Amino acid sequence: MENKNSFVAPLERLAEQFRKLPGVGKKSAYRLAYHVLDYSESEAQAFSEAILDAKRLICRCSVCQNISDSEVCGICSQEKRKKNLICLVEDPRDVAAIEKLGEYDGVYHVLGGVISPLEGKGPEKLKIAELLSRISALQSEQGENCGIEVIAATNPNVEGEATAMYVSRLLKPLGVKVTRLAKGIPVGGDLEYADDVTLFKAIEGRVEM
Amino acid sequence: MENKNSFVAPLERLAEQFRKLPGVGKKSAYRLAYHVLDYSESEAQAFSEAILDAKRLICRCSVCQNISDSEVCGICSQEKRKKNLICLVEDPRDVAAIEKLGEYDGVYHVLGGVISPLEGKGPEKLKIAELLSRISALQSEQGENCGIEVIAATNPNVEGEATAMYVSRLLKPLGVKVTRLAKGIPVGGDLEYADDVTLFKAIEGRVEM
Repeated sequence: MENKNSFVAPLERLAEQFRKLPGVGKKSAYRLAYHVLDYSESEAQAFSEAILDAKRLICRCSVCQNISDSEVCGICSQEKRKKNLICLVEDPRDVAAIEKLGEYDGVYHVLGGVISPLEGKGPEKLKIAELLSRISALQSEQGENCGIEVIAATNPNVEGEATAMYVSRLLKPLGVKVTRLAKGIPVGGDLEYADDVTLFKAIEGRVEM
Repeated sequence: MENKNSFVAPLERLAEQFRKLPGVGKKSAYRLAYHVLDYSESEAQAFSEAILDAKRLICRCSVCQNISDSEVCGICSQEKRKKNLICLVEDPRDVAAIEKLGEYDGVYHVLGGVISPLEGKGPEKLKIAELLSRISALQSEQGENCGIEVIAATNPNVEGEATAMYVSRLLKPLGVKVTRLAKGIPVGGDLEYADDVTLFKAIEGRVEM
C-alpha cells in the first residue's frame, strides 16, 4: 500500500519519522505528516521543541531512577511520602499507573526493566545496585530496624516473577520486608473467563470476609 | 482515563503535542511520548527537524498548487507529462492516490478543498482563479483550440459534485473539455451490498462489451 507523493522529499522524511512510532503504519504515517503540514509555523515549532525538550530536560531521579526534570523527582521530594515504603516497578509507566490511583503514599524505585536472559539482560543492567545503596543509606540514617518495606510490583509474568524473586533474596538478609502485589480475579471480571493460573491464585489467596 | 506522570512537565508537553494528531487519544499520546523518551539524542533531533523542514521547505507549486519543495513541482516539471490534460483534485492526498497507479500521464490542479457553504468556504477560497489563468496561459501559448481537458476528480459527494459543476460551468465557455470520473460498482465489490445511488449510476453508465 504505497502512498507516495514521491516528489516531495521533506514530506517523505516526516512520514518516515512517524512510521517509527509504535502502532503507526505506512498509511497513518502519511496521514499524520499531512496533518502536520497544515500546522502554522508556531505549532510546528512547538511540536518540534517538545520532542527536543523531552530528551534534553528529562533525566533520571537520583533517588528512585524514575524520569524527572529535576535531580530529585517530584515524588521523592514530597514531604508527606513514606520514604520507608518503596514500590519496586519495571518502568516509569508503572509509576504513572499507580500514581493515578491517588492512594499510594510511599515512594518508588524504577528498575528500568526485568531480568531477561533471552534478551541478554542480566541483573547488572537494572538499577538494583542503586536500590541496595538507597536502602543502606536509609538504614544508616534511621537504624537497622527502621521497618523498610519493598513492594515488588514487577509484572506478573515469568521475567517479572523471576526479577521479584531475585531482588527479594538480596533484600531479606538486610532485614527488609518484601511484599508482592496480590494476584486474583480482576475486579469486574468473570470467573468463567479467568485463566487457570489466575483462578488458582485467587483460591489460594482467598481472604476471610 | 488519566495517565499522568504529573511531575514531569516536558513529558506532559510532548504527550499534549501527540494528542493533537488525528486518531491519537490520551493513552496513545503517552505511549508515543514514552517511546520518544527512549530515542537517542540524534534520533530526537532527526524527528524534530523533519517537522520543521516539512513546514519550512514545503511550498505550493506555482503551476498546479500541489505541495512541492521547489517553485515548480516534480510532476509539472516532467517533460513527458501532457500539459493539456489537467486532473482537478481537492487536495495533495488525491494527487498521491492517482500517482501511485503509475498510469496517469497528465498534470494536476489542486483546489485546496471544495465549495462548502456550511463551513463558510466559497469558491474564492479555492485555487480556481489560478486554474483559469493557467488555462488562459496555455491557450495563448498554443491557440484557442489546443484541446485542453480538465478531469474534475473532486470526491463523489455533495460538495465535490457541486464544486465540479461550478468549475465546469466556468470552463466550458472557454472551449475546455470537462470530464468527470466514472461512477459505478467498485472492482471486487458486490452488487448486493452496493448502495442504491451507486447501483443506479452503474446501470446508467453501462458500457458495451
